[in-house]
Amino acid sequence: MTDAKRFITVEGGEGAGKTTVLKRLHEALTDKGYDVLMTREPGGSIIAEKIRDVILDPEHMEMDDRTEALLYAAARRQHLMEKVLPHLQNGGIVLCDRFIDSSLVYQGGARGIGIENVRELNHFATGGFYPGKTFYFDVSPEVGLKRIGDHKGREFNRLDAESMAFHEDVRRTYLMLAEAEPGRITVINAERSEDVVFEDVLAKTLEMLAKS
Amino acid sequence: MTDAKRFITVEGGEGAGKTTVLKRLHEALTDKGYDVLMTREPGGSIIAEKIRDVILDPEHMEMDDRTEALLYAAARRQHLMEKVLPHLQNGGIVLCDRFIDSSLVYQGGARGIGIENVRELNHFATGGFYPGKTFYFDVSPEVGLKRIGDHKGREFNRLDAESMAFHEDVRRTYLMLAEAEPGRITVINAERSEDVVFEDVLAKTLEMLAKS
Repeated sequence: MTDAKRFITVEGGEGAGKTTVLKRLHEALTDKGYDVLMTREPGGSIIAEKIRDVILDPEHMEMDDRTEALLYAAARRQHLMEKVLPHLQNGGIVLCDRFIDSSLVYQGGARGIGIENVRELNHFATGGFYPGKTFYFDVSPEVGLKRIGDHKGREFNRLDAESMAFHEDVRRTYLMLAEAEPGRITVINAERSEDVVFEDVLAKTLEMLAKS
Repeated sequence: MTDAKRFITVEGGEGAGKTTVLKRLHEALTDKGYDVLMTREPGGSIIAEKIRDVILDPEHMEMDDRTEALLYAAARRQHLMEKVLPHLQNGGIVLCDRFIDSSLVYQGGARGIGIENVRELNHFATGGFYPGKTFYFDVSPEVGLKRIGDHKGREFNRLDAESMAFHEDVRRTYLMLAEAEPGRITVINAERSEDVVFEDVLAKTLEMLAKS
């Protein structure tokens, strides 16, 4: 089986800043001479994108939660086989914005299908292939929602407040996963400044790559 | 959970005559006053049909076997939720041309993913909901392939001979499933004439419905 060590994923709720930091990590690692693929599902796999279109079509109001979970797993499989694994097998590093943990948290937890059910489903999809390292960007819902609000140039509003319970729940589930897999999932305090967070993630990544 | 007793599926290889007999069963049960839905996946569910389009698109040469299995499971889930379960819940009978056993045999067996892996995947998709009765139409590959040949108005040819091993394998897997679940799966000797097979299946169906 392909070595997962150089397969790095980032996870986290809205406003955690993970995508921005991932881009900087991509640049920094490339500058150091690594062959880095930065991707996110469906990530340019034609089949995975077609599957994504079915998931996201706003006319598909009848979409069942488990159908959706199966389609995400199908897109994940295809993206993994077409993009992620070939790049790893060529000796490169893959940085992926969200992966299996997002399904566990959002479909398993928030949608109520059950984390273990979604884990088994994704085990089928990935053949048990997990990232070597997952950085969970942890922020309180207050900070995350405030950042989104600032980004959109508006005040924190009533709807944000209503979604607070949802974000609390997402955070709790991510932290639970991190506690269950401390070797793979590293919790990053993402309430610090972007520069500090980036340096932290870069240092941890380089340390890991030096070991492999 | 919805009672599965009135959910009847037919299974079998090519040339077993299952679709023809299913149509006659549909007519006969309807004549007796039952409210019968005859269907097959994706069965008119718009979402399930879109998923099917992704599976069958001839340009999708890169389709991984597990992606395909996940997509079939997704289409199954959606067809089940939108079509099969509502009809059963309204007190009707559902006749479905191929269902979970086809995936076990073709994706699990022939594609080599493994029957138990595909069973678990489909367990996720159906929530453990199995047909109340499955008729497996059993014919030897010789008879099945000859019937297809006759149907196409051509002689049994070299390609048919080459596929004999494949058909043998499919049959062996179906019979193994039937042996493992004798209560649900009834083996029908489908080498007999269509009339005899139909009367056999009708009698067994009526007997089962009388009990429920």
